[in-house]
Amino acid sequence: MADQKTFHMTPGEFRRHGHATVDWIADYYERIESYPVLSRATPGQIRASLPVDPPSKGEPFSTILADVEKLILPGITHWQSPNFYAFFPSNNSGPSILGDLLSSGLGVQGMLWATSPACTELETHVLDWLVSMLGLPQKFLSTNTGGGVIQDTASSASLCALLAARERATNFASNQRGCDGKLVAYASSQAHSSIEKDVKIAGLGLDNLRLIEVDKNFAMRGDALARQIEQDRHAGLVPCFVCATIGTTSSNAIDPVLAIGRVCRENNLWFHVDAAMSGTAALCPEFRYTHDGVELADSYTFNPHKWMFTNFDCNCFYVADRKVLIQTLSILPEYLRNKATESGAVFDYRDWQIPLGRRFRALKLWFVIRHYGIEGLQYHIRRHIELAQQFAGWVRNDSRFELAAPAPLNLVCFRHKGGDDVNQELMDSLNRSGDLYLTHTRLNDRLTLRFCVGQASTTAPHVKRAWARIQEEAAKAEGEKRLP
Amino acid sequence: MADQKTFHMTPGEFRRHGHATVDWIADYYERIESYPVLSRATPGQIRASLPVDPPSKGEPFSTILADVEKLILPGITHWQSPNFYAFFPSNNSGPSILGDLLSSGLGVQGMLWATSPACTELETHVLDWLVSMLGLPQKFLSTNTGGGVIQDTASSASLCALLAARERATNFASNQRGCDGKLVAYASSQAHSSIEKDVKIAGLGLDNLRLIEVDKNFAMRGDALARQIEQDRHAGLVPCFVCATIGTTSSNAIDPVLAIGRVCRENNLWFHVDAAMSGTAALCPEFRYTHDGVELADSYTFNPHKWMFTNFDCNCFYVADRKVLIQTLSILPEYLRNKATESGAVFDYRDWQIPLGRRFRALKLWFVIRHYGIEGLQYHIRRHIELAQQFAGWVRNDSRFELAAPAPLNLVCFRHKGGDDVNQELMDSLNRSGDLYLTHTRLNDRLTLRFCVGQASTTAPHVKRAWARIQEEAAKAEGEKRLP
Repeated sequence: MADQKTFHMTPGEFRRHGHATVDWIADYYERIESYPVLSRATPGQIRASLPVDPPSKGEPFSTILADVEKLILPGITHWQSPNFYAFFPSNNSGPSILGDLLSSGLGVQGMLWATSPACTELETHVLDWLVSMLGLPQKFLSTNTGGGVIQDTASSASLCALLAARERATNFASNQRGCDGKLVAYASSQAHSSIEKDVKIAGLGLDNLRLIEVDKNFAMRGDALARQIEQDRHAGLVPCFVCATIGTTSSNAIDPVLAIGRVCRENNLWFHVDAAMSGTAALCPEFRYTHDGVELADSYTFNPHKWMFTNFDCNCFYVADRKVLIQTLSILPEYLRNKATESGAVFDYRDWQIPLGRRFRALKLWFVIRHYGIEGLQYHIRRHIELAQQFAGWVRNDSRFELAAPAPLNLVCFRHKGGDDVNQELMDSLNRSGDLYLTHTRLNDRLTLRFCVGQASTTAPHVKRAWARIQEEAAKAEGEKRLP
Repeated sequence: MADQKTFHMTPGEFRRHGHATVDWIADYYERIESYPVLSRATPGQIRASLPVDPPSKGEPFSTILADVEKLILPGITHWQSPNFYAFFPSNNSGPSILGDLLSSGLGVQGMLWATSPACTELETHVLDWLVSMLGLPQKFLSTNTGGGVIQDTASSASLCALLAARERATNFASNQRGCDGKLVAYASSQAHSSIEKDVKIAGLGLDNLRLIEVDKNFAMRGDALARQIEQDRHAGLVPCFVCATIGTTSSNAIDPVLAIGRVCRENNLWFHVDAAMSGTAALCPEFRYTHDGVELADSYTFNPHKWMFTNFDCNCFYVADRKVLIQTLSILPEYLRNKATESGAVFDYRDWQIPLGRRFRALKLWFVIRHYGIEGLQYHIRRHIELAQQFAGWVRNDSRFELAAPAPLNLVCFRHKGGDDVNQELMDSLNRSGDLYLTHTRLNDRLTLRFCVGQASTTAPHVKRAWARIQEEAAKAEGEKRLP
């Protein structure tokens, strides 16, 4: 129970309940494999277990924590399970959880440098570290013309890039007068759906997004991009933004960044590179080839909250010329004016993002990098890729299955040769079983299963067992298909 | 040190380090008043204390935690100090920190219902609770045509409202063809700066934002709004969106929501109500008068992360007609398709917000409401308002000072009668002293000090001492002004 007079949790109670919560999380990770990975809750089931009315009086913390176990857990899909192979990972780690806990505890706002200088300076510093850790071009350094910032997601980072592109192309007239329906943006047909959402939000309109065709590996065709740009210019339109993807969501295709970058330079277009998941691979020199050409980019983004053990939300977004981004998003009402801002000696990150407020997300990223060191992070990236490659080998060697796309890193796209119905039944039965969770896409108009290795605790035996379960359920699905 | 083989923090280490982190936070709150509220760090000071290069090898957790104390704390502005009266509060509480810790630990994604049903359903449920807790109109309930969603900030909520307004006004043609420079948005000259940012982002352009004049209390004039709308229609423009504010950032002015709502109804405009901080006051029936007319709104937003003991980020955003919002922001790539979505029986919150990914923020809000109960929350809101009113009384009774605006709730805008220089020196000396932190605005073109009571641990003696310090520093600032 809380302090009788003020209703607040006392420091002593906070210690006790805090320890209990930490222990609950440790226990959760120790028993996580005992739950079905994909929640079996049906629509409305969780709500039905909650009281209709809010509580008039406070309740003991132990009751609330017990309800997490009893009422919430049945509605959880266990993203941190070693048997989670769905979507892209959103992995996690002890140091990240504790860094984030400190951020919640400190409860500071980082909208201005002055509102907590450490919140801004640690963020700038750690993002500079990552430039060297990933081998990114020097222009992205804060000590150069660029700089990095933490956003919530790659969707927001791409939106910021698109807005900066829009303003650079119109000499900031779009901010002032609004859009006029002439600006055009480009991405491949395999680019993330957020690009489509971004062009709508930014007022360009979906009609002005060109989804460029891809080659047999689902990577953007640079020649097709160049042709489309020329065609649009001839039609009196104003090309302004190109997004290349390093590791598409569907199949982990790697766009030819260098070739696309050259097209952008020739045409003076803002070049954004989205490496949301696969950017993390660049921690290892042997996978940096995926980033060839990123030196031509105006902006770059990747998500430590996907594959770098940093819990959501933590997207890193870099620009080569911060002046353009800041001029695009800057506001300065009187109530935010202060001497540090006016001195020009500091970054105010509110001008690098859509929202005004921001929490101290750099803490968890700093904790992760320091806990693992470059060595520890590289170890896991190599291990995940090795496990995925092993899985791809098994698929290749089983005549009932085929790979549906190249598997350059940690995502394997594959399918049973029996057609869409068999693959649908195979996926559904695996996910129903609770033993693992994988999701699908469509490639060449055929249902394709996606197997992405990226959870912190996934080991060789997990992947081996997953493949055994896939083979087992495939045999059943084949059998069912043969029945009349 | 981490597990020698895998570099991961083991569950045992997580328990130990987790307890230490919880204890650090408890200690921090016990000694928070020993720090200067506003950080004394100079630009670059914090960065200069950090190693230039990222670590190759992992470091012990105890070293990292010690560095928070040594390197980070000097750069922290203590938002949770009871002596923090700046900006609007961003307050916090034990149950919120621990609910957020569980969210980090579970590490689930709530972009789709299927990716963790409890994440979506608890959010919908708690936001329905808040409709009754704040006395909001029934149309905002998820069980009706509307519904609520957690966003990061009121800036993002307003952007979503503006986008929905844009699409409703153009029959979704703006999403398809882009903006055409004719749509017009309206807010008062005292509205939050995010509205300005939003019209830029959404492609309307700043030229198409009308900042409507305010009355002597800094509240929007409904008649001026009606006149401006008519004028714009005559000019062939397309009015689409009006934002009223309950509690402006500058002075906590309360726009006449009912009168503005009627103008919106007559003109068929999307009516958004921004109650970012002051919405929380509606927890108490005696302050619900501030919300008169909200039944005419198409959307409404307030921030539990400001004044409701829920740590950032946690903004609540409601719409009366969720279909419009969803159609505005919806995307459905193949890799996100699933049976629950196709059944139409569930909410997929990715379609209610700008980003795709989302964390389990409802947990902390649920924890706060259950820990305090309605009774505990009301107690604190009443206490904060009472303290602010007491402070306003002291200002009124000191002939050297004057109130600069009405103080309906917990913000007091005041100034020394000696002019801008005296007020600037007064504010700077108070903030330099570290004893308290307050910020400023300009009202009627005069420098005005803002004193906002809203931190969890602020008590009567704190406010009394703050006033004594203000009087003390005012005497010095007057003295300096008298010197030749």
